[in-house]
Amino acid sequence: MSEVREKAALAKEAARTMNRLTTEQKNEALALMADALIAESAVILEANAKDLARGRQEGTSESLLDRLALNEKRIGGIAEGLRQIIDLPDPTGRLLEETTRPNGLVIRKYTVPLGVIGIVYEARPNVTVDAAGLCLKSGNSVVLRGGSAALESNKAIVGVMHRALSRSALPPESLQLIESSDRSSVDELLKLNGLLDVIIPRGGRSLIQNVVQNATVPVIETGEGVCHTYLDEEADPVKADPIVINAKVQRPSVCNSLETLLVHERYAGLHLSALSGKLKEHGVELRGCAKSRTLVPWMGEAADTDWRTEYNDLILSVKVVSGLDEALEHIRTYGTLHSECIVTEHADRAERFLREVDAAAVYHNASTRFTDGFEFGYGAEIGISTQKLHARGPMGLPALTSTKYVVHGSGQIRG
Amino acid sequence: MSEVREKAALAKEAARTMNRLTTEQKNEALALMADALIAESAVILEANAKDLARGRQEGTSESLLDRLALNEKRIGGIAEGLRQIIDLPDPTGRLLEETTRPNGLVIRKYTVPLGVIGIVYEARPNVTVDAAGLCLKSGNSVVLRGGSAALESNKAIVGVMHRALSRSALPPESLQLIESSDRSSVDELLKLNGLLDVIIPRGGRSLIQNVVQNATVPVIETGEGVCHTYLDEEADPVKADPIVINAKVQRPSVCNSLETLLVHERYAGLHLSALSGKLKEHGVELRGCAKSRTLVPWMGEAADTDWRTEYNDLILSVKVVSGLDEALEHIRTYGTLHSECIVTEHADRAERFLREVDAAAVYHNASTRFTDGFEFGYGAEIGISTQKLHARGPMGLPALTSTKYVVHGSGQIRG
Repeated sequence: MSEVREKAALAKEAARTMNRLTTEQKNEALALMADALIAESAVILEANAKDLARGRQEGTSESLLDRLALNEKRIGGIAEGLRQIIDLPDPTGRLLEETTRPNGLVIRKYTVPLGVIGIVYEARPNVTVDAAGLCLKSGNSVVLRGGSAALESNKAIVGVMHRALSRSALPPESLQLIESSDRSSVDELLKLNGLLDVIIPRGGRSLIQNVVQNATVPVIETGEGVCHTYLDEEADPVKADPIVINAKVQRPSVCNSLETLLVHERYAGLHLSALSGKLKEHGVELRGCAKSRTLVPWMGEAADTDWRTEYNDLILSVKVVSGLDEALEHIRTYGTLHSECIVTEHADRAERFLREVDAAAVYHNASTRFTDGFEFGYGAEIGISTQKLHARGPMGLPALTSTKYVVHGSGQIRG
Repeated sequence: MSEVREKAALAKEAARTMNRLTTEQKNEALALMADALIAESAVILEANAKDLARGRQEGTSESLLDRLALNEKRIGGIAEGLRQIIDLPDPTGRLLEETTRPNGLVIRKYTVPLGVIGIVYEARPNVTVDAAGLCLKSGNSVVLRGGSAALESNKAIVGVMHRALSRSALPPESLQLIESSDRSSVDELLKLNGLLDVIIPRGGRSLIQNVVQNATVPVIETGEGVCHTYLDEEADPVKADPIVINAKVQRPSVCNSLETLLVHERYAGLHLSALSGKLKEHGVELRGCAKSRTLVPWMGEAADTDWRTEYNDLILSVKVVSGLDEALEHIRTYGTLHSECIVTEHADRAERFLREVDAAAVYHNASTRFTDGFEFGYGAEIGISTQKLHARGPMGLPALTSTKYVVHGSGQIRG
């Protein structure tokens, strides 16, 4: 039996125990894991140093090396993240509905763990801990397949967490790490129907699309965000400028940051030049349509690919539009159903935008950067769903549950 | 552009209008559709006669011809089904959550239509109408791809419904029928990411598995049901016999009917012979394990494949087990996560069964035949989900919705 199938089978077997644990038992395990990450940080840092050394040898970019790198402070932050999950309510065992039918059948609908969750992600060791914490707290087993550039770090981290679990009521087999660096181990994972209940990809577009295109296990698509902000004819520049600047520059590498600015032609004539200057001061490279470049001659030229691109960087594409209809049409064509914003003082146009734009989160007069589990008040998230099935937007613990009908009878048969 | 892509694109375009309709407008359209099916039944029956004639010519089995056949009474029943959907509450536009954040952002979570739903099904013209009614009532566009043996009937039915829609506020393009009989039209539909939001297969195992294995669009897996009933050592035969007989014989062709009976060895020694006799009187063929055949020598022999088979017929496999553990293990190995039952007067064992069995619906002392939208009190259903994502068990109108976060601000930016 392959490593992937064997570990998934162990995770499934462990899921039976996971389903019977109390909230206290799960929280205790998370606390033990958090403590162990701190206590055994030397082991983790040593492994991380090996990954970093190999990465440098192989010419990995500095930004990727930065995502991979751990230190005492980062490990402390990761452990703190686990402790925050302890404070979140247990999403399982909640009674959602209860009805007594005329024939006396009592039908109850409860939340239950999904079972076994597969996570496919890039070389970010923090995801190893976050995903494990969220899956275990929600009563699931988890099979992790992280980027091979972080393999030594992940092995060390999972080793530490396994030792912690072995001192808890949770079966250590509920947490599995695929160690094979071969791409075929991902392919195999994606087709483990019957062992995995869902796969959640976390990473860039190509990783996500590989999962979506090849999985036969149900997938929750996350993360790609070509987010727009539309400055309406009646936008208030006092609100518009900070919203645009914040959405673009506060953390450009994340999915809810702004990629394309749409501006009503009359508003653009009055205010685009000043806003562009401010963005430039923040180090943003602008790429505009022909009309924007008439108004702001120093702006670069946007190609069709720009409208489709999630830059994740200090680059912004800019398009001047004739009005709300053209803005909606542009978002329909190029949006990724993530987060979209209108800035306007005109209530009816705001309502039309909020109603007609198809996205996980739609905003009126606020930065798209708020699409986030913590900002929405839900706490840690496993990702931001950009599909419409099961969960949409920030996915916290409730997104890691399913439901089950439990029916009590006294001999009822169907007539 | 292919027929499939063109029709899906029209459906997607129409979905924008669908999302803005009132409940009254949708209900009016359903009423017009129901009236038209009755008024134009002659057109439908004429087309149906062509399908039936071709089916007979091609040697189609009587049971399949029966599923395909329409008459005035059946059309009346189908139209009545549409009218029942009118009475169901509109699942869209419901406010699920509302929070005001410390920074003043008001975050609301609403139910919204999924968008465009693909339905892949067999040669059952009633599904054409049921699925259209449920999808349109929930504000979705729908792309239907029915079995080619019912093509003439489906064309006539959709023609009638289109004429009705053209007299309503709904865009007729919201309802699309793929007319190509080529298998490649299904393959194409399964990969229309960006145009379809979900595909729901309705039919037998091979149809469902084809969709699950080949779709890149998210799928809701439905319907396969290898359902078990376990007669515990402390089962009350006064309840057990009617429950087993009802679950097996009341309608053996459907997914929630009983396929495998598990019997505690002590209970079997006392009661299996009598129960087997009753089942035989109902025309049920029994296929048993070695132990069952010792107790009921006239029983046929069960092969390993029997435990995996959804007979959908008057056949029942029977296994004598040493107790609850072996019953749970058998269900874990061979169950399809649909509906499972324990018959016992022992409360703790009942609770353990209900908790540990992983299925959409688990029963204590009642027939598994109750897993059904109407029996659960939810009304018409689009199918019974046997997966854990998005919806589980009978899927009524709420399963055809997604959610959307609508955020109102006054210039908030993220710190």
